[in-house]
Amino acid sequence: MASQSHFISLEGGEGTGKSTQIILLTERLKKLGIDVISTREPGGCESAELIRDFVLTGDTDRWTPMTEALLFTAARKEHTQRVIIPALSEGKWVITDRYFDSTLAYQGGGHGLGIAKMRELTRLALDDFEPDLTIILDIDIDIGLERAGNRLTATSSSEDRFERMGTAFHQTLRKAMLTIAEREPARCRVIDAAGEVNDVHERIWSAVSTRFELPDA
Amino acid sequence: MASQSHFISLEGGEGTGKSTQIILLTERLKKLGIDVISTREPGGCESAELIRDFVLTGDTDRWTPMTEALLFTAARKEHTQRVIIPALSEGKWVITDRYFDSTLAYQGGGHGLGIAKMRELTRLALDDFEPDLTIILDIDIDIGLERAGNRLTATSSSEDRFERMGTAFHQTLRKAMLTIAEREPARCRVIDAAGEVNDVHERIWSAVSTRFELPDA
Repeated sequence: MASQSHFISLEGGEGTGKSTQIILLTERLKKLGIDVISTREPGGCESAELIRDFVLTGDTDRWTPMTEALLFTAARKEHTQRVIIPALSEGKWVITDRYFDSTLAYQGGGHGLGIAKMRELTRLALDDFEPDLTIILDIDIDIGLERAGNRLTATSSSEDRFERMGTAFHQTLRKAMLTIAEREPARCRVIDAAGEVNDVHERIWSAVSTRFELPDA
Repeated sequence: MASQSHFISLEGGEGTGKSTQIILLTERLKKLGIDVISTREPGGCESAELIRDFVLTGDTDRWTPMTEALLFTAARKEHTQRVIIPALSEGKWVITDRYFDSTLAYQGGGHGLGIAKMRELTRLALDDFEPDLTIILDIDIDIGLERAGNRLTATSSSEDRFERMGTAFHQTLRKAMLTIAEREPARCRVIDAAGEVNDVHERIWSAVSTRFELPDA
């Protein structure tokens, strides 16, 4: 029924439930008989993982922000060329956990390089390739950080990097994501990530099924 | 006498005598009392060397050409921010063995990404920063490769990477460098690198002293 493959990215800050929502969306697409793979950034293939490990080793101020943007973009190029485009060519749908909007928000917004400049870098590096649809999961910063904090306490170290960044940084990231959505309304949909998991999923499904003219599943 | 610091890059293929000419030019500037440092790409500082080692490890086809361009540009950003700009700010002149024109020629020309596209990437990453003067050492490919071959036989392995690239690749690089010079005549000077070392040096000196209005030394 879906004759054409599509590329969807999910973006959103801490505690927006991105990973869970990707699983639910993938399962729902599969119910329609759609062949779909999910992947993630930074990483997604051996060469991109190598660059990822390289970027993330050492102190957080090891690189200048532009260097970090270039290194993440290099990893994204590998991910795109070796995983995303080949899968789309085989007729598969691809859902990625983060894509270039993360660089626009983090290095462009958070580290002050400018959203427009990071978009230009991305266009150049990816030859204008972009997702058909970008879902931006949006949540009040305090609620998001509280949710993420609960998850961390349960599953990993509370010394996680994001906690050291502070609320102001997360506010900047959130604002940057909303700015991106305003600038690229044809590609982006902002989804309210507050409330129950299934309610958020239904909002995402509504956006996806409308955009690609899918029947309900 | 030279109240302002300047940034000079030297470019040129195999056998053009770049390293020797940088030593001679540096010494001659010092005779005029100019404080000058020489540096090199890829590398020039710890963080850039790290990226350089990372890029050059493994098979030559490990990265796509655009990924390679992004990684080299990341190393260049570090080199620029941590070495070149600080030295210029202290009033020193800086001479570099290779700069962004090498990426324009190799990835842009040699690997087909396009010279204009690589120039755009460079402008974006370096915030329009560029050398005040770029000396392009130009030589007939056969003469250059013969010279480089003699040097290699004397000092290192004849299995060096460039030999595997073939004459056609080196022709493409030479052509790319000449194209760059045509497009940016205010910045670039093409210097004939054939003949005796001292004759080539005098040609370079003529270009440098004219450009920066220096007395003879």
